[in-house]
Amino acid sequence: MSQSIAGKVAIIGVGTTKFGELFEQTYNDLVVESTFEAYDDAGITGDDIEAAWLGCYLPLGWGYDGTGGPALAEALNLYPKPISRVSNYCTTGMEAVRNAALAVASGLYDCVLAVGAEKMREVPPRGSLVAQHVEKLHPLFGKGRTAPGSFAILATRYFEEFGAGKEDLAEVAVKNHYHGSLNPKAHFRKEITKEQVLKAPPVTEPLGLYDCCPTTDGAAAVVLCRADLAEKQFGKKDYVLIDGMGLSCANGYINTQFNPRFDFLGFDATTEASRQAYVQAGVTNPLEEIDVAEVHDCFTITEILNYEDLGFVKKGEGPEFVKSGASRLGGALPVNTSGGLKSCGHPIGATGARVIANLTEQLLGRYGERQVPGAQRALGHTLGGPGSVSSVFVLSKN
Amino acid sequence: MSQSIAGKVAIIGVGTTKFGELFEQTYNDLVVESTFEAYDDAGITGDDIEAAWLGCYLPLGWGYDGTGGPALAEALNLYPKPISRVSNYCTTGMEAVRNAALAVASGLYDCVLAVGAEKMREVPPRGSLVAQHVEKLHPLFGKGRTAPGSFAILATRYFEEFGAGKEDLAEVAVKNHYHGSLNPKAHFRKEITKEQVLKAPPVTEPLGLYDCCPTTDGAAAVVLCRADLAEKQFGKKDYVLIDGMGLSCANGYINTQFNPRFDFLGFDATTEASRQAYVQAGVTNPLEEIDVAEVHDCFTITEILNYEDLGFVKKGEGPEFVKSGASRLGGALPVNTSGGLKSCGHPIGATGARVIANLTEQLLGRYGERQVPGAQRALGHTLGGPGSVSSVFVLSKN
Repeated sequence: MSQSIAGKVAIIGVGTTKFGELFEQTYNDLVVESTFEAYDDAGITGDDIEAAWLGCYLPLGWGYDGTGGPALAEALNLYPKPISRVSNYCTTGMEAVRNAALAVASGLYDCVLAVGAEKMREVPPRGSLVAQHVEKLHPLFGKGRTAPGSFAILATRYFEEFGAGKEDLAEVAVKNHYHGSLNPKAHFRKEITKEQVLKAPPVTEPLGLYDCCPTTDGAAAVVLCRADLAEKQFGKKDYVLIDGMGLSCANGYINTQFNPRFDFLGFDATTEASRQAYVQAGVTNPLEEIDVAEVHDCFTITEILNYEDLGFVKKGEGPEFVKSGASRLGGALPVNTSGGLKSCGHPIGATGARVIANLTEQLLGRYGERQVPGAQRALGHTLGGPGSVSSVFVLSKN
Repeated sequence: MSQSIAGKVAIIGVGTTKFGELFEQTYNDLVVESTFEAYDDAGITGDDIEAAWLGCYLPLGWGYDGTGGPALAEALNLYPKPISRVSNYCTTGMEAVRNAALAVASGLYDCVLAVGAEKMREVPPRGSLVAQHVEKLHPLFGKGRTAPGSFAILATRYFEEFGAGKEDLAEVAVKNHYHGSLNPKAHFRKEITKEQVLKAPPVTEPLGLYDCCPTTDGAAAVVLCRADLAEKQFGKKDYVLIDGMGLSCANGYINTQFNPRFDFLGFDATTEASRQAYVQAGVTNPLEEIDVAEVHDCFTITEILNYEDLGFVKKGEGPEFVKSGASRLGGALPVNTSGGLKSCGHPIGATGARVIANLTEQLLGRYGERQVPGAQRALGHTLGGPGSVSSVFVLSKN
């Protein structure tokens, strides 16, 4: 790898829909709402967009919306521009931003759009993601291999190895629901107590209802341009720079948990993706150098593993990190100040773009009650295909 | 659009499987065979690959193979590298190459891999693409809107407007089957006569069996590197340069034929994608400046429309272009010297990468009986989502 991406690409506008059960909005409605918010933020119109990338994970799971570039062109009247679609499990939204950023850095386009969108609630009960995994996968190692089941076994192993327990997971749920209570666009906006978490109905032992993020509808949009044009052409004094972008496919989708090296105590994909991003960004001590982070808390155990895989703390120290308040607003490194997947929900194609959008607002100092004062450097992380792929961004204020 | 991509990215290795009914090969087998051929051609190993892009259109149509980057990592043991997946209807394979090329031009990666793969034959009869379109789409404008039906109405309109007929379409079929008879990797390798085409069973009037490309299994791989490293680092004296890459989403997937401006006589997406690529490549007279082309002959009528949409000839002159022999081997601008989709078949995710691979072999002067002597500049074209999206590449010998 000869060069870095650092300093080449600026984020000049972001937008997100409210996340939730959005039965009253179509897929196109979500795309339009998030994108026009991003246009307004950037001070541009669709005419300024030269190319776009759509992140949508599983359109055929629910309909044809989001299958290819034309779905974005149609929603936004971006005809006849170049629009690609990317899909990479739960990193999909971040992949849209990453490929858009590479295209800007290539010099071919000055200003591009990345949109992540997924509409997951408007399905019959048998059309849910869980039902599809049960019905479509291999009868021996596919059936029943749902997301909660895949992550629960890591919690069990972690408890055994480090003496942690359900009450440690509950700390993550309580923190992220608190952050979500401050986020007007979160799916869940109520604080919960540790007692509620521990008494909640079990989903897959040891994970209970409040250990799991919901399935959700939502979209997020990011406008990117050449960094040297952010002020000169688009009149931005304050914007966000991409310092590093890592992506790692560290295991196959099916074999994550059949990999003989897999210790069930963390995800290689996260470690490798963050390594790439840190090298590009020149980060050597993330806990010191990162001011705010959004990480993939699809389940509470995942956030604890992320702390360790991302190098915030050593193996086994994740529970203490959250218990100490370090990852809460006001702590040393606030994590998931949006409320995370736990409170925002997880429209798969949208999440990664939502993370970039929320961190941009943090770095620009306009994140309201959730603002981390003086945040200069941010980290965004997604993890997908239970542990097979991860994406990490390091962003900074210009 | 400030700059061009021209001269920044080199193609230093290509590989393709035989295309056909490959029941004896899994999806992974196809990926491995095409990629290792490309590695050998480039004189590299997987260790040299820094990032990869997988093009696979519709994995959930048939199984989980190809859903995301991990599918490529698993087949090729590319762990833990960054691998994206793109999907954009029938331009999918070309989109893998395009996004890979943008990433190289960005300066982040020196050497990357693009693979297109699709396994379409190993399905029960009700699992075919046609069956899915009939079953899954909207009951009013979805059901029955199969690919042959979507393109047949353009043939009918073209006949009415320009006085052409089935015998003109037959010229395309005869030519491409002749070219395919020379291609050991084509799905169909038999010459056919005009009489056979005209007497073939009807599929959708006016298209008969020989007017339609088959559904097929196959994969193709392309190794790309920074142009300035092609000789210095990879020891290549002869390689191919990307002069221009255009992509256009000119209509929505559903509304192609509901667009009030649509005249049913050609595809705006092709015209716009070629315009972008020509500007980048500095092409002003494609018929004079392009020596060999691969275009999207999913149906015979499509190839005739492509001649016109790509600016090889004026509207209405397509039939004469093929009848005159201009697009046959030995003609002024040989088109689909591989045999095209008509003879190679159309594994959707693979086709665009196969086109780039075949044109690379033409430009390097090693395309055997199908060689166009002295070819210096080549054009590749794909068209998907019946007319909603098109991709065009212009390539040249270094």
